[in-house]
Amino acid sequence: MNFDKYLKRASVRRFDGRPVPMELLRNILEAASHAPTTGNMQLYSVVVSTEPEDRKRLAALHFNQPAATGAPLILTVCADVHRHGAWCDARSADRSMDNAGGRLTAITDAIIFAQQLVAVAEDCGLGTCYLGSVSYNLRGFAQELQLPAGVIPVVSIAMGYAADPKPEAADRLPLEAFVHYGKYSAPTPADIDGFYAAREALESNRQFTQENGKETLAQVFAAVRYPRHLNEDIGRQMLDMLD
Amino acid sequence: MNFDKYLKRASVRRFDGRPVPMELLRNILEAASHAPTTGNMQLYSVVVSTEPEDRKRLAALHFNQPAATGAPLILTVCADVHRHGAWCDARSADRSMDNAGGRLTAITDAIIFAQQLVAVAEDCGLGTCYLGSVSYNLRGFAQELQLPAGVIPVVSIAMGYAADPKPEAADRLPLEAFVHYGKYSAPTPADIDGFYAAREALESNRQFTQENGKETLAQVFAAVRYPRHLNEDIGRQMLDMLD
Repeated sequence: MNFDKYLKRASVRRFDGRPVPMELLRNILEAASHAPTTGNMQLYSVVVSTEPEDRKRLAALHFNQPAATGAPLILTVCADVHRHGAWCDARSADRSMDNAGGRLTAITDAIIFAQQLVAVAEDCGLGTCYLGSVSYNLRGFAQELQLPAGVIPVVSIAMGYAADPKPEAADRLPLEAFVHYGKYSAPTPADIDGFYAAREALESNRQFTQENGKETLAQVFAAVRYPRHLNEDIGRQMLDMLD
Repeated sequence: MNFDKYLKRASVRRFDGRPVPMELLRNILEAASHAPTTGNMQLYSVVVSTEPEDRKRLAALHFNQPAATGAPLILTVCADVHRHGAWCDARSADRSMDNAGGRLTAITDAIIFAQQLVAVAEDCGLGTCYLGSVSYNLRGFAQELQLPAGVIPVVSIAMGYAADPKPEAADRLPLEAFVHYGKYSAPTPADIDGFYAAREALESNRQFTQENGKETLAQVFAAVRYPRHLNEDIGRQMLDMLD
């Protein structure tokens, strides 16, 4: 077994302008639908945005980041208890998934499907990039995509053919940082130094830290990229959607 | 591109007893760690259970379902803001991910990682089965695996070599049921009939409905497999973990 395909993968944020053939997209979607799903309920839906005007409005909701403005295709994967509920309604059954627990199960189904979609697309030579910015404005995306109650946008995926030069794989933490045997082993400060040493030593990260006027890379994450107030707002929005 | 690998995949619930070599497992874990992750934070951890006594206690928490009792290996994938928070502590940075929004982001990271783990393992000829029963007793799993605050068990994966006969792929809904173009198109009752017709007509599902003394397959899902009180309990447990 050659693991290179997995070890060398990288998210693609710059596309070459070629469209993704619709026939290929349908094959990818069908293949991905065989991903595992809770009780075979498939509690997800995906909204495919190909029309320039649709993509323009979606990209604006994604803060016009280049991966969104430059992709020929944006797929917004949603947790969906609405369709399953409509089936229950039509079959004299209780809409038993239409509550916070059911919606959380649907989020799991949606992300498993989304990642299989990414894996199949990459296998077809396409480039993809998750746009987590969906979480920053759940109601905005729900309104734009006309999602009914019980359909929660979870992630968008920008998809297309990578422009040259293709991106290289990003670094990852060593296995010891995230793999535990038998029980979880809480890291000591010395463990933390070891886990993050290589990452903190990367020239690109040292430069990034300096450009942001911070002393440590962790401070850039905590104060600039993913500040507390932003996460608290994401939490409030999602809890509101689960209710 | 041949999509058969994806179209014919199936979850494996019966294993042949051979152990998974640790070297192979480490290669799979490393390959899967290159899955996409939010800002390269890798907000997940995985607890690997190989020891018979550990697996026995875990399987009991999974209601001793055969996939859990028979697997040589159980991997419990967790959303983890604890390690990232420990890094922030050690680097004079705010633990900005340690709140509901950050934990939800970690759940997304964990599920993307889990599905890449499943995809890589399947590519290596291994069989896997998600054990969603983690959600039924979050505190029980957290206690068993000694998870600190900020580490939430999300899914377990049973892994091993499939026993013969190997399972066949399950049916899936037609693309029209879950793919929308431009905007979400809410299904009419006629749409629902079309989406679910083939599934409801399967002999196995007709028999399953009859055995459960129900009139429709949806009633079996709503009243027997995934009843409302169970989902409501799952929701309460997870909201408690997010807090």
